[in-house]
Amino acid sequence: MATNQEEVQLLGVVGSPFVCRVQIALKLKGVEYKFLEENLANKSDLLLKYNPVHKKVPVFVHNEKPIAESLVIVEYIDQTWNNNPILPSDPYQRALARFWSKFIDDKVVGAASKSVFTVDEKEREKNVQETLEGLQFLENEIKEKKFFGGEEIGLADIAGSFVAFWIPIVQEIAGLQLFTSEKFPNLYKWSQEFINHPVVKEVLPPREPLFTFFKARYETLTASK
Amino acid sequence: MATNQEEVQLLGVVGSPFVCRVQIALKLKGVEYKFLEENLANKSDLLLKYNPVHKKVPVFVHNEKPIAESLVIVEYIDQTWNNNPILPSDPYQRALARFWSKFIDDKVVGAASKSVFTVDEKEREKNVQETLEGLQFLENEIKEKKFFGGEEIGLADIAGSFVAFWIPIVQEIAGLQLFTSEKFPNLYKWSQEFINHPVVKEVLPPREPLFTFFKARYETLTASK
Repeated sequence: MATNQEEVQLLGVVGSPFVCRVQIALKLKGVEYKFLEENLANKSDLLLKYNPVHKKVPVFVHNEKPIAESLVIVEYIDQTWNNNPILPSDPYQRALARFWSKFIDDKVVGAASKSVFTVDEKEREKNVQETLEGLQFLENEIKEKKFFGGEEIGLADIAGSFVAFWIPIVQEIAGLQLFTSEKFPNLYKWSQEFINHPVVKEVLPPREPLFTFFKARYETLTASK
Repeated sequence: MATNQEEVQLLGVVGSPFVCRVQIALKLKGVEYKFLEENLANKSDLLLKYNPVHKKVPVFVHNEKPIAESLVIVEYIDQTWNNNPILPSDPYQRALARFWSKFIDDKVVGAASKSVFTVDEKEREKNVQETLEGLQFLENEIKEKKFFGGEEIGLADIAGSFVAFWIPIVQEIAGLQLFTSEKFPNLYKWSQEFINHPVVKEVLPPREPLFTFFKARYETLTASK
């Protein structure tokens, strides 16, 4: 349970979909925290100390206790600050939220990234197919619901930030049509609802610098073909 | 919460480390269930209906509500039947249990499997290295503790069944030394504690048929080189 003498820190980089998950959770809960910006080209001693296993952001540090892995952090935040629940209390609904969050990580995030940032054409095409299949499952699941968990933002929506905000940016850079309103009308509707939610809107990184960043990365990659 | 009119079913195959996780959880809780043996070469309509996304076992069905993904199922079981807790109640300890379970799935299970069942020598060597690195992190984490969560079997131990029981079988078949008492003394001690725990012992599949099964698979693979 949270107390008044908290030290809440987040080691992250602006523009990371995984860091953004934690920021959405903290903003939903109204938790104040210190954002420690990492330079991934020259990782801080703090990052190496707190996440010696993966050496990645986000790392969440609550009263000097570090936690890594974005979804593990979001569950921790939800259990520690009880207002505005992120996971439903019903065990079956919780299981579904965890299932779809894991599905997004296992079947969509990697495939969509590789659809854009892969030089080999065959490999790229395979990942495009996998992304479309993954999005189709999400389309079938969201149906007419406002959010994956119902009326409020939950774990699967937070995991899905990548789909709602990041995929549209990177597909535009690569001239791909992965996630469009024509192909996935319900999921597209969800994504608009999600990115325009006041809490999410405030936390999402600014689009233009992110676009420029990914575009440079894409051009470096395709130039080296 | 569990009631008296339960229908508890598990779709699985004998010998799967992921199915075994669910079986350990159910046995720890003392929950009776019906085991529905799947033929993965000819999947049942029930499996395709209940896990249309991955079409894989285990699928846990509680009063006709299906759940897939072994760790999601174990968390569901822990929340539904409250005796003999599998996850600690403290949020930070829960986060650690989830972190290490995910670590085992992401960094050890795949790498160890590919260390054995890969034809390409370079790819195989890369996976051997990754497995050893993964096991070293587990060695550092378990230290002198009896189980990952302390005195009782918890989520990370259950996830670690693969390390304790399956790796020794498949490494013997391939003549590899991945997980040995010399390299990882604390983890080895843990593995002996774990596989000799009365509940685990009762649930683990018999070693010999599993050895024969994996040996045949290994020989088919290496013969096709």
